[in-house]
Amino acid sequence: MQKVIFDTDPGVDDAMALLFLHKHPEIDLIGVTTVFGNASIDVTTRNAQFLHREWGITAPIAKGAGRAYAPSRSDDHPASSVHGLDGLGNIGVPDTIDLPLDPRPAFQFIIDTVRDNPGEVTLVAVGRMTNLALALQADPEIAGLVKEVVVMGGAFHVNGNVTPAAEANIHGDPEAADAVFITPWKLTIFGLDVTMKTIMSSAYLAEMTASGGADLKLLSDLSQYYIEFYRQRVGLDGMAVHDSCACVYLVAPELFEYRTGPVRVVCGGLADGMTIQAPDSGRRFEGSAWDGQPSQWVALAVQPEKVLETLRAALTGSR
Amino acid sequence: MQKVIFDTDPGVDDAMALLFLHKHPEIDLIGVTTVFGNASIDVTTRNAQFLHREWGITAPIAKGAGRAYAPSRSDDHPASSVHGLDGLGNIGVPDTIDLPLDPRPAFQFIIDTVRDNPGEVTLVAVGRMTNLALALQADPEIAGLVKEVVVMGGAFHVNGNVTPAAEANIHGDPEAADAVFITPWKLTIFGLDVTMKTIMSSAYLAEMTASGGADLKLLSDLSQYYIEFYRQRVGLDGMAVHDSCACVYLVAPELFEYRTGPVRVVCGGLADGMTIQAPDSGRRFEGSAWDGQPSQWVALAVQPEKVLETLRAALTGSR
Ligand SMILES: [Ca+2]
Ligand SMILES: [Ca+2]
Repeated sequence: MQKVIFDTDPGVDDAMALLFLHKHPEIDLIGVTTVFGNASIDVTTRNAQFLHREWGITAPIAKGAGRAYAPSRSDDHPASSVHGLDGLGNIGVPDTIDLPLDPRPAFQFIIDTVRDNPGEVTLVAVGRMTNLALALQADPEIAGLVKEVVVMGGAFHVNGNVTPAAEANIHGDPEAADAVFITPWKLTIFGLDVTMKTIMSSAYLAEMTASGGADLKLLSDLSQYYIEFYRQRVGLDGMAVHDSCACVYLVAPELFEYRTGPVRVVCGGLADGMTIQAPDSGRRFEGSAWDGQPSQWVALAVQPEKVLETLRAALTGSR
Repeated sequence: MQKVIFDTDPGVDDAMALLFLHKHPEIDLIGVTTVFGNASIDVTTRNAQFLHREWGITAPIAKGAGRAYAPSRSDDHPASSVHGLDGLGNIGVPDTIDLPLDPRPAFQFIIDTVRDNPGEVTLVAVGRMTNLALALQADPEIAGLVKEVVVMGGAFHVNGNVTPAAEANIHGDPEAADAVFITPWKLTIFGLDVTMKTIMSSAYLAEMTASGGADLKLLSDLSQYYIEFYRQRVGLDGMAVHDSCACVYLVAPELFEYRTGPVRVVCGGLADGMTIQAPDSGRRFEGSAWDGQPSQWVALAVQPEKVLETLRAALTGSR
């Protein structure tokens, strides 16, 4: 069993990833930490509570950051046009959910849980990197105590989805992402290079839902707004399962191809929030900002059908 | 016959491109303008004079910019490790060549020539964009009088060659490139996405040289240092024919695939000199720096063997 803390801003694709982690027999979800992003921190935290209640998830929820890591960054607007005003596709989530939160802020929950389970915890971060950056700032030694870090974010050799240069999770807090990426821990990044190739069609979701239980019915309901966004704005019949890609990696890393090398994040200017890797296999550039930084893993190719099948198997309980 | 002004910083791959333009029967080389880059402006201008004398090229040479367009940019160091200290592979080019220069600076030569041939001149720019930016600054109306602009530069969905983010021609003068790319004229860009796929092997060059004349012997001699750079630093047996890609386009545009959309250049920071296109076919982002800028053409795929064959045919005079 892999011990996983899921750092998330639910969010429609976050919800699918959460259900996958909850239902997969090889994964022990030991905590959920929330972060602002797809909606405000109050809304994403409420959504985590809602999904826990509806799906019977018992892992503790710790509320995380509501604004960016760097003091100079102003708060920005959540992506309500993508995930709906309530962050879950406008399905009518109650304003409050009566489910207690862990008393600690997310970064402290991460620190304590990692220290209680040295070498055993995988951090799966599918929102902005703020909580991870705060945890590293407060206790840098956790870098050596975490098993590994898995991130959904960035766009390496494809365009972004918030600007032509940048993907939403990274663009939403570039300084936090840069701090996380230059930390010497094993880190694997799933950006738009692979997630935009991993599209679950509305027919696939419908078929999966028909063969599943009430949990899948809720997942399908809350996904419809997101699918409509993709139909109108991206021209796809279906949805990119961004956050689920990072979760499928945990049980099927062979479904992706990786390139290693240090990763930096552009902070400010035209390319604000852009992720750039200096491949270990590429040219060496003297005096570059990548020099001496730890090599990280970036997924650049994917077998989308097999990722979808891995998702389906766990979500429908057929494995 | 296509009237071409070749804006260049010879430079080994510039030399091959120059010989191609000189020898191709469909191209009328009506001027060569020099710019700093692969070496200082004095050296690149001297190299243009040298190649003209050796190859009997009679087009006028106008000396261009020796420093970047933006006053804030300090002069930088030429790429002597790539092209040799003399910019032509250390073959022993004489210190001075007794061949007169056009009295005008390059930007004025460009303006005058374009105005003398309205709608007829193609600008092929394979060094830094400094001369073109200066010409536009002095006489913005030339944008409507040029037939088209063809650029070698940038790296869109691949890593750069000066930093992990940026290609040399653009990195060497980002503000100039941005000014050129947001000008409303027909502009086509050949970046590392295609030029690094268009590799002339040392064997191919040798075979071509054996079937050609003295002009090819010189081209082969001055290319050996560059090929050695590629062997040691890039791990390739051969050379990327960067600048020639932009020239082959003139006679065989069908050998490339293009994507249209505004192109901006990052100025400053980690990604200084990076080129980013917002594809016309992609998502629309409100309030982005690409909004309202003219759509340009970016080559993203190439048929390398056919490009090499087009080069060979012209260089050996077999067409
Ligand atoms: Ca998310
Ligand atoms: Ca050049």
